[in-house]
Amino acid sequence: MSQTLSAAALDQLFREARTFSHFDDRAVDDATIHALYDLLKFGPTSANSSPARFVFVRSPEAKAKLAPALSEGNRDKTLAAPLTVIVAHDLTFYDELPTLFPHTDARSWFTGNDAAIQTTCLRNGSLQGAYLMLAARSLGLDCGPMSGFDNATVDAAFFEGTSWRSNFLINLGYGLREKLHPRNPRLPFETACLIA
Amino acid sequence: MSQTLSAAALDQLFREARTFSHFDDRAVDDATIHALYDLLKFGPTSANSSPARFVFVRSPEAKAKLAPALSEGNRDKTLAAPLTVIVAHDLTFYDELPTLFPHTDARSWFTGNDAAIQTTCLRNGSLQGAYLMLAARSLGLDCGPMSGFDNATVDAAFFEGTSWRSNFLINLGYGLREKLHPRNPRLPFETACLIA
Repeated sequence: MSQTLSAAALDQLFREARTFSHFDDRAVDDATIHALYDLLKFGPTSANSSPARFVFVRSPEAKAKLAPALSEGNRDKTLAAPLTVIVAHDLTFYDELPTLFPHTDARSWFTGNDAAIQTTCLRNGSLQGAYLMLAARSLGLDCGPMSGFDNATVDAAFFEGTSWRSNFLINLGYGLREKLHPRNPRLPFETACLIA
Repeated sequence: MSQTLSAAALDQLFREARTFSHFDDRAVDDATIHALYDLLKFGPTSANSSPARFVFVRSPEAKAKLAPALSEGNRDKTLAAPLTVIVAHDLTFYDELPTLFPHTDARSWFTGNDAAIQTTCLRNGSLQGAYLMLAARSLGLDCGPMSGFDNATVDAAFFEGTSWRSNFLINLGYGLREKLHPRNPRLPFETACLIA
């Protein structure tokens, strides 16, 4: 039977975790990227559809391709981050369903149904982006997620001629806590929740 | 500086965590629901917009309201679960931005921009649904997320005349591991990831 995680783990995952804009100069190596995927991939998605795709942008050349898409307020910090993940999704994700969800014909739920494809990608791809952030924090990394960028520009630079599309971005590295601002407030339980 | 969490914690959050259809008969009490929100609320959202809203469906009366919306394959297990969360979002979430993100006029980014409202709700509300699942696992609970239900029926039953809309559902409780099927496969790194 599972127990509540330690107070230190709850702090690291949620209570003391923050969105970082500044990171120290340690790189995020290939082994860490693989370890990250080997955790996040287990997070649940609808019919195990796993529509998210991840581009780990680390080289100066790839960062330069990303730069024109970034909003002014996100550009410098993203270029300086050790690694930026493009959380994307594959609009043909359902072609993997015979492998991922083999006991029924789940592929036919999506073929030709563009609304279901788009909603499944955005809902489940975003879930997987959240799993990536929590997996990163579990590995001692810090995150700086962003949707302040132009998706079409990213898609043209990285995904032209493919079925992958960008969702949002996450800077990753080892954050500089001394450069954080105070945390913004959260909604009280009574505003965000109902027990019925 | 953060460390990698213990192997037991990584198992509980990701590697051994599963989607459960069957739970034991322990209830999920109010204190646990509040503890869950007090973790998940800290997860990052775009401009701290926090669009998700959560209805914790626990009473027989509320479960009965939910029942007609459920797909055949999800109905019995959901009615039997100790608690079902409607992960919803508030289409007027941006009215909270002067409090949640006070240093700029973020509210004006959304007023009258229905496409931005819908995308922000689905992306960030889904992120928050994932935070809920990882927070639940952190507290020793198990999850059974679903999108196999009719959103319009849930919205009519629970949200008529309000600006809340359903996104997906999560059964919560203490899972019966002996009733699990073997886990489905996940995509290999090379299919889902690129290092650029």
